[in-house]
Amino acid sequence: MASTSSPTLSQAILARPISGNASSSSSSDRVSLSLSALKFSPLSSSSSSLSSSSSRRASGSSHRSRRRLPAVLRPIRAAAVETLDTATEASLVEKSVNTIRFLAIDAVEKANSGHPGLPMGCAPMGHILYDEVMRYNPKNPYWFNRDRFVLSAGHGCMLQYALLHLAGYDSVKEEDLKGFRQWGSKTPGHPENFETPGVEVTTGPLGQGIANGVGLALAEKHLAARFNKPDSEIVDHYTYVILGDGCQMEGISNEACSLAGHWGLGKLIAFYDDNHISIDGDTDIAFTESVDTRFEGLGWHVIWVKNGNTGYDEIRAAIKEAKAVKDKPTLIKVTTTIGYGSPNKANSYSVHGSALGAKEVDATRKNLGWPYEPFHVPEDVKSHWSRHVPAGAALEAEWNAKFAEYEKKYKEEAAELKSIFKGELPAGWEKALPTYTPESPADATRNLSQQCLNALAKVLPGLLGGSADLASSNMTLLKMFGDFQKNTPEERNVRFGVREHGMGAICNGIALHSPGLIPYCATFFVFTDYMRAAIRISALCEAGVIYVMTHDSIGLGEDGPTHQPIEHIASFRAMPNILMLRPADGNETAGAYKIAVLNRKRPSILALSRQKLPQLPGTSVEGVKKGGYIISDSSSGNKPDVILIGTGSELEIAVKAADELRKEGKAVRVVSFVSWELFDEQSAEYKESVLPAAVSARVSIEAGSTFGWSKIVGSGGKAIGVDHFGASAPAGKIYKEFGITAEAVIAAAKELC
Amino acid sequence: MASTSSPTLSQAILARPISGNASSSSSSDRVSLSLSALKFSPLSSSSSSLSSSSSRRASGSSHRSRRRLPAVLRPIRAAAVETLDTATEASLVEKSVNTIRFLAIDAVEKANSGHPGLPMGCAPMGHILYDEVMRYNPKNPYWFNRDRFVLSAGHGCMLQYALLHLAGYDSVKEEDLKGFRQWGSKTPGHPENFETPGVEVTTGPLGQGIANGVGLALAEKHLAARFNKPDSEIVDHYTYVILGDGCQMEGISNEACSLAGHWGLGKLIAFYDDNHISIDGDTDIAFTESVDTRFEGLGWHVIWVKNGNTGYDEIRAAIKEAKAVKDKPTLIKVTTTIGYGSPNKANSYSVHGSALGAKEVDATRKNLGWPYEPFHVPEDVKSHWSRHVPAGAALEAEWNAKFAEYEKKYKEEAAELKSIFKGELPAGWEKALPTYTPESPADATRNLSQQCLNALAKVLPGLLGGSADLASSNMTLLKMFGDFQKNTPEERNVRFGVREHGMGAICNGIALHSPGLIPYCATFFVFTDYMRAAIRISALCEAGVIYVMTHDSIGLGEDGPTHQPIEHIASFRAMPNILMLRPADGNETAGAYKIAVLNRKRPSILALSRQKLPQLPGTSVEGVKKGGYIISDSSSGNKPDVILIGTGSELEIAVKAADELRKEGKAVRVVSFVSWELFDEQSAEYKESVLPAAVSARVSIEAGSTFGWSKIVGSGGKAIGVDHFGASAPAGKIYKEFGITAEAVIAAAKELC
Repeated sequence: MASTSSPTLSQAILARPISGNASSSSSSDRVSLSLSALKFSPLSSSSSSLSSSSSRRASGSSHRSRRRLPAVLRPIRAAAVETLDTATEASLVEKSVNTIRFLAIDAVEKANSGHPGLPMGCAPMGHILYDEVMRYNPKNPYWFNRDRFVLSAGHGCMLQYALLHLAGYDSVKEEDLKGFRQWGSKTPGHPENFETPGVEVTTGPLGQGIANGVGLALAEKHLAARFNKPDSEIVDHYTYVILGDGCQMEGISNEACSLAGHWGLGKLIAFYDDNHISIDGDTDIAFTESVDTRFEGLGWHVIWVKNGNTGYDEIRAAIKEAKAVKDKPTLIKVTTTIGYGSPNKANSYSVHGSALGAKEVDATRKNLGWPYEPFHVPEDVKSHWSRHVPAGAALEAEWNAKFAEYEKKYKEEAAELKSIFKGELPAGWEKALPTYTPESPADATRNLSQQCLNALAKVLPGLLGGSADLASSNMTLLKMFGDFQKNTPEERNVRFGVREHGMGAICNGIALHSPGLIPYCATFFVFTDYMRAAIRISALCEAGVIYVMTHDSIGLGEDGPTHQPIEHIASFRAMPNILMLRPADGNETAGAYKIAVLNRKRPSILALSRQKLPQLPGTSVEGVKKGGYIISDSSSGNKPDVILIGTGSELEIAVKAADELRKEGKAVRVVSFVSWELFDEQSAEYKESVLPAAVSARVSIEAGSTFGWSKIVGSGGKAIGVDHFGASAPAGKIYKEFGITAEAVIAAAKELC
Repeated sequence: MASTSSPTLSQAILARPISGNASSSSSSDRVSLSLSALKFSPLSSSSSSLSSSSSRRASGSSHRSRRRLPAVLRPIRAAAVETLDTATEASLVEKSVNTIRFLAIDAVEKANSGHPGLPMGCAPMGHILYDEVMRYNPKNPYWFNRDRFVLSAGHGCMLQYALLHLAGYDSVKEEDLKGFRQWGSKTPGHPENFETPGVEVTTGPLGQGIANGVGLALAEKHLAARFNKPDSEIVDHYTYVILGDGCQMEGISNEACSLAGHWGLGKLIAFYDDNHISIDGDTDIAFTESVDTRFEGLGWHVIWVKNGNTGYDEIRAAIKEAKAVKDKPTLIKVTTTIGYGSPNKANSYSVHGSALGAKEVDATRKNLGWPYEPFHVPEDVKSHWSRHVPAGAALEAEWNAKFAEYEKKYKEEAAELKSIFKGELPAGWEKALPTYTPESPADATRNLSQQCLNALAKVLPGLLGGSADLASSNMTLLKMFGDFQKNTPEERNVRFGVREHGMGAICNGIALHSPGLIPYCATFFVFTDYMRAAIRISALCEAGVIYVMTHDSIGLGEDGPTHQPIEHIASFRAMPNILMLRPADGNETAGAYKIAVLNRKRPSILALSRQKLPQLPGTSVEGVKKGGYIISDSSSGNKPDVILIGTGSELEIAVKAADELRKEGKAVRVVSFVSWELFDEQSAEYKESVLPAAVSARVSIEAGSTFGWSKIVGSGGKAIGVDHFGASAPAGKIYKEFGITAEAVIAAAKELC
């Protein structure tokens, strides 16, 4: 479709307060109040090449009357723009799009590293999103009610950096573009939320971003349902995602998108950059499925924009249509040319992940008529984009005013919402956690975990989560709430289905939506293998997700080796910025939750038992905080003969062994080693007080790999564990056969002291 | 659909040599030669409730004339059966199906653990597959040309155990059924190929099985294309899979099924047990997508059997239709009732994963009219199934005779095929591996890996594999071969697309298809996180997959922390039964491949560099075999002052540091520690000779987590590594900033000695 229609008009159709929500009863609450009265007819030119394969919902927009946009657009279209006439604006859009393309080309060229192809192909949709559609405040990237944007095809990050730069974000100045992929820059090789304000999540590993997007949209739908009032739509934003062929091939995206369809996340709009090229060449060699059909099966509304390279109006109309469909997420398949504009490399894998090279950069400059020096942003483009700083400030100010009104009327809700968007935990929340005495009944830590979760749900307004179809095994249901579902989005039990990977990434999205949202998710510990890539991103992107991982050892018994974690504890102890917690009883479980809730920028994994465990004397919430601590010592202040170290379900065994050894006159210390990371963070003095260098007789016991334990028990000690796969049998039998017993601890201790 | 049509006839339609392949020109080569002349009309009764949503291929079967099956069926339907009249046979099928149900019920009840629901619902399809459709030899579960069956919903393993028991497999005797889920039994809680002959792969972790099935079907298609001749279809079997709702939700199944559709795996027939119940209850709470539509999008033929509980003829007709569709895999959605027959628990989650309980077992016995004691197989059922032992022996004998003919005519091909199905490596194969001298050019180990792979491809007929869309980065293309594709299945470069998890599980299926198939697969090392569950299954199920993992550290540079592995080496060192190899140069890469090829029951992970590395003096193929070995020592037979230990790309740094330290007069030993697992397996003497206890001054360097290194360097040593996430910058800069340098090694060494 040629862009012959009035760009001013067509852009106006997409202008935020009008498009999609013009027919909504709540649009009068939006920032540009006067705009909601404007009516437009849909773009007639768009129908020719826009194919909608799902039934369209009546949006009411066809009754709107055509009208040219005047000064009312001022809050959004700043002064510099309104002086431009139609023709200029059409060429200005093109110029802005080419600015994006060349910022990407030049940055990749300078770094001699990166992915120019996607930004060149996706510049039109990027431009339309950031310049015409999205609501954001460049000077406060954390404004709560902003639209969220996720570049799931994270390798194309120069697209996002160029857009953030043009929009006026302080995080991406010209020198940052020039420092692309260099040490210490704000423009790393893939988008990283913790490096670059304005980037919402961390992407690059394919498929994570679209799943994060589902989490962001879930959060919006949940908060809107909880906090919006008939007279105040205080939570109201869209989530936009660009994903590529690679994301589409990954299983995680199917998992997350199946849930998005199930939940009816109507404000999730995903652009599928259908460029038919991946690293190995044409996608025909490995990817010939019908994505459209699959997404229809997943319950999405699907639109095909056939010309994503220059079909600006097609893209605009697609967004408009997507917004009109409120009960389904929308996939806009945008057919683009990877490396659009490069005369010799476009539409080939060579433009995917390498610099174009000086010669081809020149050829592309000629081909697209770009006479400028590298990194140059033409004045008119700069001026055009400059309105986003004041407009964004206005948007936020307007929302703040709206929130002040809301706060007056709905004090309690406002306080809850505030705690969610400010990330402040309610005073004294930790007092809700249950405490136990040695007389409290023995119980599985998974059950004790449920007591903690339910206690926390009463005091933490941001706590929500669920299990990958194991709620009744993981014990994760919040009894005071119902299920988060399409028609009950205000509820807090999320049913993820058997989709561990999608679950983890969705929780990352929830956590990064607002600092006060505290998502938890659950499965059997062994199935962290299914979601490890998402868990690693939690750790990297500082998303304080709480991973509730039950059935944490051979102690699960009959399900056998496919279900019995062995190496998993070790594998997470080796992972940076994550807390691996293995509580032994009720007090330690409560302590683990306390730590997990407090660590909002570091995810926690709680490894919990299937089997019953006694409440042990000496364990404590405060002890967990130290990572490792003494739960009993019979050395009367002297040097113990031996230190027995246990975690989780094996701490009980260490205690039993200690009892026996003490009967034989040994001075025995028992140490609970619930979290290696927390222990590592303690002072040298504290560490020495728990594990004195002078005591080399140390025995550890843990029903998992002994890998890594040398560091704790030293060369003079012994680590008891399981360094092979498990077995299918009742748990007690397996413990015995594998030698995870008090007898084994006693024997090892006697050998050492 | 009521089962009113003649069961004898309808079963006959499915009888192996007839169904599906009757119209095939090659069917005359099948075991029951005389059967291929028989013609039948399709079951008219099946059309009423069978809905086929893809276009059906003309199978020619509509021209077959209806005829009753006489004695020609003898090779398959043994003597006991032929005396039964039609009515008896109808009831006998029902009785056989109930036998399966009660064997499952009784075994779960005795174990008080397990999943009775699926076997009760899937018994009809299980019966039809094992009694009427599949070609196998119970007394030789490893017969090469057998049909493969995979229970992807592995928790329902009692279904498979009951079927193996009835069919006459020695692996599942009555006492094994009674020992279900007990220590040392052949009937673990989920199907394990390494425990139970007759079980093809290891399932339980959901979605793995269907992906294994894709691998099995790929292997068949590949071998058939390579070895079949116009006059001899020597490779010719089907792969059947039963998968459940859980498998369908997992992303891995979508990945693998997208590839199955792409490759047109027509002999893959998957039964989707559509029972609408998963652990958390009705699947409506999390799984409302249209699976049918999705699979159509994935390029599958989709059939819906609406009554899977008693609709035997529907199931039979669906299989017939599936076999007639030769260019697409088929999904037969079979709507069943979980726990069918249980009056109070059927169709509820309570029957999914728990014993029914004595009372409900009684009620179910009454409801299904089952007067027998637990574990009883009625005589007529036993007698009916008894024909499979002689029939299976006949099938194999016939095939063996056919192969003898083939061998005469096609000597070379027969030798290759034999080496594949016997798993014997060609004599002297390892001589093909390249060797290097210190003068050989510096190169990245990923490139050296490609040299090895291409050298091996010339001598190993079973080597095939590929990358998850990173072939040109992982350097995994076999230059002498083309792409394995739908129409070129004889080729050996497999294009997996960006589907790491599916890739790993498909490779497991390939490896377990025939002992001489050696699949390799590749991605960036960090993305093992995406496929970790499949890698773990490789290790558990003894599938000798070779994982070619490039870009193995911060040395990949600009892509940044999302792409830089840190904890990955440690995480695999902790995993049982897997070899984690990190070669330092050409000779070590060749050595790693030698080890990987020799370890057919233990997978190998090769961590390979993106960056160039020198060929180091002292490295060797033989050294790799020991896991850790001395590459240089300046102590002249005396005790070295310090031992420097490196792996992979950091061995070069250790060597540089040693050079400097030696200049200063230190006696320095340099040890390459390419594989911890292999070193662990060496004698105590050897270990002492490499790392003498007397030398506590040890410095290790590895660009990854130091987790675990305490064991090697001891409390007196120092481990240099990276215990935080990486960064986006050129590799050299990152190494320097992170202190992964010769200077750091020298400083540490000087502190210690």
